[in-house]
Amino acid sequence: MKSSMMMTVMIGLLLSMNLQAAPKEDYLRPEKVPAPASNKITPERVELGKALFFDPRLSGSNWISCATCHNPALGWSDGLPTAIGHGMKVLGRATPTILNTAYQRKQMWDGRFRSLEDQALGPIAADVEMNQDLDEVVAELKVIPGYVSMFEKAYPGEGVSQATIAKALASFERTVVSTEAPFDRWIKGDETAISESAKNGFAWFEDGSKGNCAACHMGFNFMDDGFHNVGLKGNQDAGRFAEVPVPVMKGAFKTPTLRDITLTAPYMHNGMYATLEEVVAHYNRGGDTKDNLDPNLKPLNLTAQEQKDIVEFLKTLTGEPMVVTVPQLPQ
Amino acid sequence: MKSSMMMTVMIGLLLSMNLQAAPKEDYLRPEKVPAPASNKITPERVELGKALFFDPRLSGSNWISCATCHNPALGWSDGLPTAIGHGMKVLGRATPTILNTAYQRKQMWDGRFRSLEDQALGPIAADVEMNQDLDEVVAELKVIPGYVSMFEKAYPGEGVSQATIAKALASFERTVVSTEAPFDRWIKGDETAISESAKNGFAWFEDGSKGNCAACHMGFNFMDDGFHNVGLKGNQDAGRFAEVPVPVMKGAFKTPTLRDITLTAPYMHNGMYATLEEVVAHYNRGGDTKDNLDPNLKPLNLTAQEQKDIVEFLKTLTGEPMVVTVPQLPQ
Repeated sequence: MKSSMMMTVMIGLLLSMNLQAAPKEDYLRPEKVPAPASNKITPERVELGKALFFDPRLSGSNWISCATCHNPALGWSDGLPTAIGHGMKVLGRATPTILNTAYQRKQMWDGRFRSLEDQALGPIAADVEMNQDLDEVVAELKVIPGYVSMFEKAYPGEGVSQATIAKALASFERTVVSTEAPFDRWIKGDETAISESAKNGFAWFEDGSKGNCAACHMGFNFMDDGFHNVGLKGNQDAGRFAEVPVPVMKGAFKTPTLRDITLTAPYMHNGMYATLEEVVAHYNRGGDTKDNLDPNLKPLNLTAQEQKDIVEFLKTLTGEPMVVTVPQLPQ
Repeated sequence: MKSSMMMTVMIGLLLSMNLQAAPKEDYLRPEKVPAPASNKITPERVELGKALFFDPRLSGSNWISCATCHNPALGWSDGLPTAIGHGMKVLGRATPTILNTAYQRKQMWDGRFRSLEDQALGPIAADVEMNQDLDEVVAELKVIPGYVSMFEKAYPGEGVSQATIAKALASFERTVVSTEAPFDRWIKGDETAISESAKNGFAWFEDGSKGNCAACHMGFNFMDDGFHNVGLKGNQDAGRFAEVPVPVMKGAFKTPTLRDITLTAPYMHNGMYATLEEVVAHYNRGGDTKDNLDPNLKPLNLTAQEQKDIVEFLKTLTGEPMVVTVPQLPQ
């Protein structure tokens, strides 16, 4: 075989592989929630992190906690198009769920933090979010005996510090993971777990010549840790470009997980779509702007039924609610 | 016996009775949480009320829920000296705990609402609290299918209305009651349940010639449903006078429960004292102002140890934390 011919065959093979559905193993929950060696998950760290997560004293006003916006009653988000922060200022981006951030390699819509530890203090310190001086919060926690003892149990010898606050919050967030959803039972072989419409929807979702959704929403967590400009009408937010100033990143935002997606409306980085139907319609028309548009986006020409099937599939990604008890905060 | 002599004897008897400790039965939990005939407690009503209580969509901003300020992580209060409301405006009075409001005959610091049903919509509608138009919130809830079905189960045939929102919230609040505290185990006969210091403190607390605290903080819920001016320095708030314009009510506020009192610092209607020690010291000096001072207040001349004993007793009124799971709100 001539080398040019071999190349053509190989490209053909690659393309046809691309079009094939991912192996079912890709959708199985990873065996372990990843955690850095410097911050292994322990029950004491999770308990401390949970208390901190629910504690409004972590904000400058002592009125806003992480859980105010990442509300476990609302899919660990806030149900708002875009977030509200200190002074009740309306912000420019939607509150992302913290569900399954444990599995992500970059945090925030623009990916500016690499780990949960790096991320944890960001919103606390941001003047438009929790508006808390970080040295002050350390001093405040140090005079609460209950906290001092919790920090000592969680991080012996390390004490109350910005670093241990961040590590404890990250440890708690690593427990906020999706539960088994109908989709998972189906992927493991229970054919009755989801409807025929949802099964068709998953096929369109995965099919690179059809829905092409899985190009970005891939694997167990239905995201690729990547950033894409998906052609949202009127978007003026530079997104990832502020971190990585290459033109293709202009207006690009991190692919969100689709786990528990029915709990976190409205959708997109700016909350511009109220329903999953609107989101699927957006992708079906290949987005609304062309500038820097991610090459995966193109008009899909899905029928109304096919779009409905994809929505039915998306609904199968919501698991049983995680039972969250409210912690009693140290006085 | 001459009638004037008989009168003297009777007055003497009454005074001596006043000085005696209340019978132990007075401190036992009432057999049932009271509820009006028009709103009997059912699991469906409590479940609905709990969802509404945690739902920020009950506020004009869709960001503040009842639980934001009546935070179960902080003794159903907020840990702040005075409340924060819509627009993060700092208000003039402390957020009262909702613990054991089920047993109270008047609600709010100034008692302006008689029942939990009457009270429930007040803070939702107040422009400085949740700032929610009540007709609007009814309309908003009516388009959430999960809520429509919860209301139908809780109040068959009544639908989503201001009245059923109030009744459901009241039903949930009737489940927020104190749990067994060390004091309760002691009152039932377990002599090891509280310290000797706390037992002494309870004696001073009850003794009309000594601490005189039980003149207002009486019975199981350690309150009298009454209003008293307790001589707080610098207080400009008219309190109960706004509702009942008789001079004695100027600067008078409702006696708060002492149940779980260690969880709800800071103290007083304006949060002016950070610790129980400061509160006991205030009463020991008979308050700081004389104008309209409640006649129960007078300098007590308690020793430092006696004051410490009273604080030790107060600490025995905190029960095991009530386990509260976060509800999953209908989407």
